[in-house]
Amino acid sequence: MKTILRAALAAAAAAGLVSPSMVTAQEPPAQEPALTERQAQTVDRLIDAGLEDDLAWEILESLTTEVGPRLGGSPEEARAREWGVQELKRLGFKNVRIETYEMPYWARVSESVEIVSPFPQPLAVTALGGSIATPEGGVSGEVVHFRTLLELQAAPDTGLEGKIVFVDEPMARTQDGSGYGTAVRKRSQAAVEAGKRGAVAALIRSAGTDSHRNPHTGGAVSGGGKTAVPTAALSNPDADQLARAIERADEPVIVKLDLQVETAESVTSGNVIGEIPGETDELIVIGGHLDSWDLGTGAIDDASGIAITTAAAKLVGDLRGKPKRTLRVVMWGAEEVGIFGGKAYAEAHKDEMDKHVLAAESDFGAGRIYRFDTRFAEEEVAKAKVFEGALRRLAITPGNNMAYGGADIGATRDMGVPVVSLRQDGTDYFDLHHTPDDTLDKVDPEALRQNVAAWAAFLYIASELEGDFGRLPVKE
Amino acid sequence: MKTILRAALAAAAAAGLVSPSMVTAQEPPAQEPALTERQAQTVDRLIDAGLEDDLAWEILESLTTEVGPRLGGSPEEARAREWGVQELKRLGFKNVRIETYEMPYWARVSESVEIVSPFPQPLAVTALGGSIATPEGGVSGEVVHFRTLLELQAAPDTGLEGKIVFVDEPMARTQDGSGYGTAVRKRSQAAVEAGKRGAVAALIRSAGTDSHRNPHTGGAVSGGGKTAVPTAALSNPDADQLARAIERADEPVIVKLDLQVETAESVTSGNVIGEIPGETDELIVIGGHLDSWDLGTGAIDDASGIAITTAAAKLVGDLRGKPKRTLRVVMWGAEEVGIFGGKAYAEAHKDEMDKHVLAAESDFGAGRIYRFDTRFAEEEVAKAKVFEGALRRLAITPGNNMAYGGADIGATRDMGVPVVSLRQDGTDYFDLHHTPDDTLDKVDPEALRQNVAAWAAFLYIASELEGDFGRLPVKE
Repeated sequence: MKTILRAALAAAAAAGLVSPSMVTAQEPPAQEPALTERQAQTVDRLIDAGLEDDLAWEILESLTTEVGPRLGGSPEEARAREWGVQELKRLGFKNVRIETYEMPYWARVSESVEIVSPFPQPLAVTALGGSIATPEGGVSGEVVHFRTLLELQAAPDTGLEGKIVFVDEPMARTQDGSGYGTAVRKRSQAAVEAGKRGAVAALIRSAGTDSHRNPHTGGAVSGGGKTAVPTAALSNPDADQLARAIERADEPVIVKLDLQVETAESVTSGNVIGEIPGETDELIVIGGHLDSWDLGTGAIDDASGIAITTAAAKLVGDLRGKPKRTLRVVMWGAEEVGIFGGKAYAEAHKDEMDKHVLAAESDFGAGRIYRFDTRFAEEEVAKAKVFEGALRRLAITPGNNMAYGGADIGATRDMGVPVVSLRQDGTDYFDLHHTPDDTLDKVDPEALRQNVAAWAAFLYIASELEGDFGRLPVKE
Repeated sequence: MKTILRAALAAAAAAGLVSPSMVTAQEPPAQEPALTERQAQTVDRLIDAGLEDDLAWEILESLTTEVGPRLGGSPEEARAREWGVQELKRLGFKNVRIETYEMPYWARVSESVEIVSPFPQPLAVTALGGSIATPEGGVSGEVVHFRTLLELQAAPDTGLEGKIVFVDEPMARTQDGSGYGTAVRKRSQAAVEAGKRGAVAALIRSAGTDSHRNPHTGGAVSGGGKTAVPTAALSNPDADQLARAIERADEPVIVKLDLQVETAESVTSGNVIGEIPGETDELIVIGGHLDSWDLGTGAIDDASGIAITTAAAKLVGDLRGKPKRTLRVVMWGAEEVGIFGGKAYAEAHKDEMDKHVLAAESDFGAGRIYRFDTRFAEEEVAKAKVFEGALRRLAITPGNNMAYGGADIGATRDMGVPVVSLRQDGTDYFDLHHTPDDTLDKVDPEALRQNVAAWAAFLYIASELEGDFGRLPVKE
């Protein structure tokens, strides 16, 4: 019977109806990577434990309540580092430490936007990260409406002198967050494109999918933005309102923008690190970022990532005996304002990069994981199946070998370290992301537990699996 | 067959299984109030037209966009009156005018609350209407947590000296809005009860059902509040946060509150009135309130009411020939801050109250109408069935004869004028009510049309029906 089934599957595979892996699923040849019976049982026990986990919630509640908002480089982020050290020690992690680095600092002081005429009224707005200030007292000008960034980019190099640009482009709601890439281009380019053409400020419709009057902040301007003018995001209802005002007015709509900011050339920030020592000094590096934007308490971005990865590592660490590889949890600093912690980590650890077997970050909220992506060396891709099989009972579907990994491990990945992505459902993520509404009540405890279960299973397999995941091409 | 059915229904009615009215539904006796065949056809035409109405949306969009927020007594409310006059004239209403009155003025200037220790962070807060200011620079104190207003009321008369009271009572989500009555008691009593006991300020959990960081404002303190201390509402997530901070801290939680307000003993406000003259000088008075709280653009509270009643009156006015009774649309002023417009209307028109046949207000958002309540004189209650029958095709169910009518017609009702309530589904109303989120995007155009259809049918029947609705007991 088995032989007949195998023959039938082989024929189907030849016809392209099923994948070759289905053919071999019945009896994997000895050389295919697989868990031992005992390892498979341990994975199941870890998943069971993860699905009943309360530690992640406790970590999440503690960080968001006791520290609250924690902007990269701020005194609040420093308090978060102390919190992180205390928490990792309390949970029994070893080699707990802060690795500091220096970074430039930006913070909002005040922000306001109003329609001056013909329909005077305030609009809900937030300064975008890195924006320069307006002159004190603000800057006024006629609003020029662009439905998309492309329309602004297609505008002539002159003709916007003294005007305020309004880029009204909406953002697509997607499960995988792919709408955000486009939105980030709008957020980071509007001020530069506006400035090039002589405009005095740039407003954008928030990079967000909700309909609440909580505008979405986010990084807008970094190194290349020499021509960037003051820039801020309107909430979606306020962008609607401004667009309607322009539509209904029979005269130019005049808007006044007043942004005041605080900057410093260099402040100290840091990454918080803790480890579960393994039998070898090979490293599996996981974590989330410790900083948040200032508007909310950063529950989904990214206290959840901190909580999920710490709780998962603790579950694996609580198993009898040491893990084969060392598990390193990193709470990266200052991600939002320029990925300073992630870059500093890679720089500080470049001499031990060959010991980094695999890296992964949780930084997309607390929605259920629905897909598992890898970025392994081509010759090691077959190992993805071991993870995929173990995660199947959590309703996680196999993905591809083009994993992003996470912003904070980008620099590590660029040094050749393979990464994975445990991809979370982000359908509602951009309703909250970078707004005052990023608070604890938005997290679903059951979804959080599913995350912990998946990360624990992933982490255990990554630690125990025979052989590594190869090396990725190094990017200079 | 008919005889048998009637006999069966009579028997069922005697047994209490069906109401007596069902028994007679087959063949109403001549003396029961009813529409003529022609009138019934007109009602159907009005409902058809209402369900395709675009005027209400146009009015709603115009008021919320071109005027925006319009606090009672403010220059913005004065602009709203000009808008109202222009709009009613444009639509062909007659006797369009502003009837002014004087009122005391209160407005917020600035507001902030922060946890000072042990978990320093800002909280999202809004001053409650009528609150006195804190000293400049704010007031700090230990927070004392009361889960309900009842707990605060049960506290001893001393023991809260120098403290900041926090009344954490949540609000029930209900279709009929009945949770609001309890919530208003909390909002209006916390500051008084706190002050009596020596507290320096009172914070409440917002009177609202959402989980966004948009606190709900609303009137807190009026005449009787001699002991009232500065008072403000936290958003629901911030109330959660403060409660968690208190729970997690092993020392007193210190909060600082800084509220600055502006007041004036007397400013001018007014009601905007327009009419569709009838064959007689008997009056049917309908409308909504023109003012809004300052935080949002008052789309659901109460530009929708203005839009629905104006559009419905216009539909009836566009019928061939004059209505039998005069239809008077009133845009009442300054409802939110003390029902000044509604009271001024009744006072100004007390000499023609005997000509007021019926009054009704739309002031519960733009949700679908699901029920029709009356408050007719007992001997005229049978006339409710005429309205109920006509509204049945809009999925509106008969209610009772204890209609509230609306805040702005309270004083009119107290002078003996019968009222009705076209009751709207308020399940989500208190997610938005009195917050920055009360904006146009929250209104469902289809539900708005159902409102217009129901109001047009109601208004026509109220105008044309033979005989009046009696008089209610006069309240001194």
